[in-house]
Amino acid sequence: MSKTINIPGACRLLREHDDVLILAHQKPDGDTLGSAFALMWALEALGKRARVECSDPLPENYRVITGEYAPIAFTPRFVVSVDIANPDLLGRLRESWEGKIDLCIDHHQRNTMDAAHSLIDPTVPATAELVYQIVTELGVSFDTRIAGAIFMGLATDTGCFRYASVTAGTHRIAAEMIEAGARHGEINRIMFDTRSRALIEMDKLILNTLEYHFGGLCAMVIITREATGRLGVVDHELDGVSALPRRIQGVEVGLALREIEGGWRVSVRTRESIDSSALCATFGGGGHKAAGGCTIHGDEQAVRKLLLPAVEDALRNAGLLPQ
Amino acid sequence: MSKTINIPGACRLLREHDDVLILAHQKPDGDTLGSAFALMWALEALGKRARVECSDPLPENYRVITGEYAPIAFTPRFVVSVDIANPDLLGRLRESWEGKIDLCIDHHQRNTMDAAHSLIDPTVPATAELVYQIVTELGVSFDTRIAGAIFMGLATDTGCFRYASVTAGTHRIAAEMIEAGARHGEINRIMFDTRSRALIEMDKLILNTLEYHFGGLCAMVIITREATGRLGVVDHELDGVSALPRRIQGVEVGLALREIEGGWRVSVRTRESIDSSALCATFGGGGHKAAGGCTIHGDEQAVRKLLLPAVEDALRNAGLLPQ
Repeated sequence: MSKTINIPGACRLLREHDDVLILAHQKPDGDTLGSAFALMWALEALGKRARVECSDPLPENYRVITGEYAPIAFTPRFVVSVDIANPDLLGRLRESWEGKIDLCIDHHQRNTMDAAHSLIDPTVPATAELVYQIVTELGVSFDTRIAGAIFMGLATDTGCFRYASVTAGTHRIAAEMIEAGARHGEINRIMFDTRSRALIEMDKLILNTLEYHFGGLCAMVIITREATGRLGVVDHELDGVSALPRRIQGVEVGLALREIEGGWRVSVRTRESIDSSALCATFGGGGHKAAGGCTIHGDEQAVRKLLLPAVEDALRNAGLLPQ
Repeated sequence: MSKTINIPGACRLLREHDDVLILAHQKPDGDTLGSAFALMWALEALGKRARVECSDPLPENYRVITGEYAPIAFTPRFVVSVDIANPDLLGRLRESWEGKIDLCIDHHQRNTMDAAHSLIDPTVPATAELVYQIVTELGVSFDTRIAGAIFMGLATDTGCFRYASVTAGTHRIAAEMIEAGARHGEINRIMFDTRSRALIEMDKLILNTLEYHFGGLCAMVIITREATGRLGVVDHELDGVSALPRRIQGVEVGLALREIEGGWRVSVRTRESIDSSALCATFGGGGHKAAGGCTIHGDEQAVRKLLLPAVEDALRNAGLLPQ
């Protein structure tokens, strides 16, 4: 059973220990890496040894904050996980570290890490906001590197300050990190204004599959394995695609069908009127009100025959289609 | 000859006058409208009469800040322009108000408005930041409406806080506006997460015209009049398209060709290596280092024959292609 602690409590633990291993989640994103590197550099500023580990190699575009990273060797005596909601997300590091994590720092509502100590705050839009508070409480001054890493976490987990989850506090931390030397223009350009040729080709293919149903209340895109394979696009690069259909004016239910072995992974995004998780639960899936997912077995036609009537029912129940 | 004034000077003028007409630029965007409405409501809070006028109707998506706007009738005794860089941008209001503007508030480097008094600060990324300072100096408290309008201006002129022009101060104002009740989540969703079906179709068409030149150092898209006409997309809705080719990894020169009567409007976007304005100057155009434009007469083939060799030369001069 994990013991819940607050920021000063987490700082006390970090001060008391040395040789700290910091774990980032698999398929790393800007928040897990930004949080991990900021924490590592802050601990180093306190004279400690620390290193970051991740199941997957660090994607090229995070170099802007990590630089060339050469982890130092030591036997960990304190293990911290950052932005990791469940043990599955440890990836191949699960075998070594599951059940041995001393401090879990996260902002996901449903965290099932079962670390010795947990600092979990779902009110912040990014784990980096918690790490900012830790670094501040530790009395470490924000150098350019730490500021850049924190900024990366904030920006990437909020769609560049776009989501409703952003608070006044998030903007204030961003301001402080810019003053401390975060190269925000460059970070934002790399993360939000650069797209690989393969992903641009993918956008094109996906837009060509776009179809509307129920008078434009539902939009759907289809991503085949043939397409992703041919373009060499990997799974996590497609995460943004799920949001595309709902972005279209008038769309209440956005669907993205991604082909997997023996069936389809369905991403559902809805506006206020429809509960995504309830819709996905029909097919054994789940999620949140505005975003859910499920897996449906069978070929494309079979999936359509199951999925579209369920969407139609949901639209009818919401009063958006006539009874 | 316009007299340059500062924030307290502008506030003195605004305090001294009543019946204030506030002009927004044609094809209005979030900054001109956010600035105009925030200023109007602040003046009303001081017991004055004020109204906003614009050459074009207010686009639907700005209702989130303006609400149903019914301007009040009075004969203007003081005229303010906000975010208007030159008299052309007054549109059909030019005839009535050119040369009669008492106060020009703007953040564009090259402002040629020639108002009686000018408050121009190119160091802020949005005119709304100047209006924020004015409202503060006037001692008017930020209600939900004013806060929303200022936030709209900041967010839309910075690509939702993405551009390098954003400063720590911009984020701090955003924080204050959120605390004052700006519905930032809703504003951002409407401005950055919603796209009309026509524009989505346009994206599809444009991506299908995407072509690479010089080993991927240059990317080009082509927008025909047939396509825009058929989809009913209007000119200013296409502004974002110009940025697309440069967003692609490895692209140093992004070109967007938009068909006009008798020729093509060419938008050029470059990375650090190439000067857009110099490239455009070859064809009688101009602009900034990273973004320029020019008009080339002739059919598509004729434009290609002129434009692509000029791009090739620029890439060669920058050392990106062998001599």
